[in-house]
Amino acid sequence: MRKIYFTPGPSQLYFTIEEHFKSALTENIGSISHRGEQFKKIHQHADNGLRNLLNIPENFNIIFTSSATEIWERIIQSCVIENTTHLVNGAFSNKFYQTATQLGINANKIEATDGTCASINDIGIDSNPELIAFTHNETSTGASQPLDDIYKAREQFPNALIAVDAVSSLPYIDIDYTKVDSVYFSVQKCFGLPSGLGVWIVNDRCVEATLKKESLRKSTGSSFRLSNSFKMAMNHQTPATPNVLGIYLLGKVVEDMNLKGIDMIRREIDYKAAVLYNAINQHDTLSPFVKEIQHQSKTVVVAETEKSAEIIEKLGKKGFVLGTGYGKYKSKHIRIANFPTHSKEQIEMLSDLLLL
Amino acid sequence: MRKIYFTPGPSQLYFTIEEHFKSALTENIGSISHRGEQFKKIHQHADNGLRNLLNIPENFNIIFTSSATEIWERIIQSCVIENTTHLVNGAFSNKFYQTATQLGINANKIEATDGTCASINDIGIDSNPELIAFTHNETSTGASQPLDDIYKAREQFPNALIAVDAVSSLPYIDIDYTKVDSVYFSVQKCFGLPSGLGVWIVNDRCVEATLKKESLRKSTGSSFRLSNSFKMAMNHQTPATPNVLGIYLLGKVVEDMNLKGIDMIRREIDYKAAVLYNAINQHDTLSPFVKEIQHQSKTVVVAETEKSAEIIEKLGKKGFVLGTGYGKYKSKHIRIANFPTHSKEQIEMLSDLLLL
Repeated sequence: MRKIYFTPGPSQLYFTIEEHFKSALTENIGSISHRGEQFKKIHQHADNGLRNLLNIPENFNIIFTSSATEIWERIIQSCVIENTTHLVNGAFSNKFYQTATQLGINANKIEATDGTCASINDIGIDSNPELIAFTHNETSTGASQPLDDIYKAREQFPNALIAVDAVSSLPYIDIDYTKVDSVYFSVQKCFGLPSGLGVWIVNDRCVEATLKKESLRKSTGSSFRLSNSFKMAMNHQTPATPNVLGIYLLGKVVEDMNLKGIDMIRREIDYKAAVLYNAINQHDTLSPFVKEIQHQSKTVVVAETEKSAEIIEKLGKKGFVLGTGYGKYKSKHIRIANFPTHSKEQIEMLSDLLLL
Repeated sequence: MRKIYFTPGPSQLYFTIEEHFKSALTENIGSISHRGEQFKKIHQHADNGLRNLLNIPENFNIIFTSSATEIWERIIQSCVIENTTHLVNGAFSNKFYQTATQLGINANKIEATDGTCASINDIGIDSNPELIAFTHNETSTGASQPLDDIYKAREQFPNALIAVDAVSSLPYIDIDYTKVDSVYFSVQKCFGLPSGLGVWIVNDRCVEATLKKESLRKSTGSSFRLSNSFKMAMNHQTPATPNVLGIYLLGKVVEDMNLKGIDMIRREIDYKAAVLYNAINQHDTLSPFVKEIQHQSKTVVVAETEKSAEIIEKLGKKGFVLGTGYGKYKSKHIRIANFPTHSKEQIEMLSDLLLL
């Protein structure tokens, strides 16, 4: 039986991926030099495609890392000298907070009850954080911080760098890049690619912060420090041999997405989310874990239930692979990815099966 | 025309790789959770296969990173408090030295003339380095540090951690792991895999060093710090979503190598190296860049010539892709990879073509 993965990442591969794997083998993508012209074109193709798809302005560069977890580390090492503020809505936003702490930063957290979002009103108005970290879409709980909260923080704290974890929500969200400084995602979520690649969209203000830190003779890392990787990215190069195949596949999938059109992708996700939440609301033993409708994630739909294992097993027998809850919610939640590769028909079938 | 890549990495993919890509797609390797049992088995398969192939003792664990460049950073962050000594034989050993410096370490380098190897007699006998860094095979110049030098350093500096860059020489070299503490490689060299994975073979002495550093309340990194990744590796887990496909493919290729047998692989590399050096020695305008036979790399054969571009172009027309020189030697050297995937017949044909 052919399985369809609705796990919140790694998830179902984008529906065009098999042909791209084949062309990668034909074009010797696994063998080419990462210092040659062919690689530069692959890098540029992915870079241009992402700029087009996400409407990224020119003062941002796109840096490829191995994971979003690595990006947490690079942001802190490169851009922060003393202090950060983290809005923590669940396990992943908390891990970014812990990363800052482990790297010796005086990190403050504003923590929400699970399934809700922290309030920007709790950022002390007299505090002067160098960086405010938001998690747009908390993959562990399905709580989604409204973009307006993020933009308001920019107004209130114009000197702070604004970092946005969009790991499991890009390309769904239409971010106003003039109001943020770092946005990052992992390719194994909404982009439907094999894991092993993180994408850091980072602007000149972050580079200024890293140059300031370096001018104080503080270490900002080694080969992967922002001042180096930002400059290399402009030349479509990377500090070390990167995941060339991953960057190639990303460029191809982004090309497919641009052909489909970002508006269509976003409309479909809205439609499919409505179908899923409708099924969950109608269901006898399921209810949305996130109660506030404005905080309910469209891309990672989380339901609480006493019958998590039973439901996952029932759907699994039909080839529909759902996610368990995260961490302590493992047996109390189900998590359903609603990514661009999941078709309306698949989500409708899944919803019907849930209600059977 | 089908090309064969003799570039020193990324290089020709292992000859079995296409079938492994196909099975990866069939088995949904790109979609499975990195926290589930299926991934643990994939991790364990690669881990066991490498232990078997390379004869790695139990007090070592195998940690998967994104690149060898990342491993340089992890070794320094995790295991070194104040000072290191680096035997520098070319560009890559120098980059490890620079990594230490950039991370605020008091790093000493003992530098060899290009094409030769630094002498361990130049490590000050009164110096007390926490770590001595060797590059077994300097991919930039083809200079190979004899393993005996490394073992002697262990005898003379029993308190120092011994780190061995075997990026482009494993699995060719038969290392005595009782005399070293960290050995690392990249999969896009001798293992014939797509880039995006580094492998760090690291022992309990390195863990003791990191625990000591942590006990002094010094940062050893965040999620990827050795104390975390070592413990997770024992449970066949990784700190972040790794390159699951890369680990899967590595396990498969290592299984193929174990079936062939490491002795056969090593004998073939010796034979092929003899064929290549013989051709270079006979050639009118080529000569080995490394003059001392004991320092001539078996896996990355480097020849100097005034006609680098011409030779590379001539062979390229026949489908044989050679490497240029590295850095300032770009137009003055050719580099030829002699990896396990390159057959005796291919190397013989290449040597014949060189001499035509």
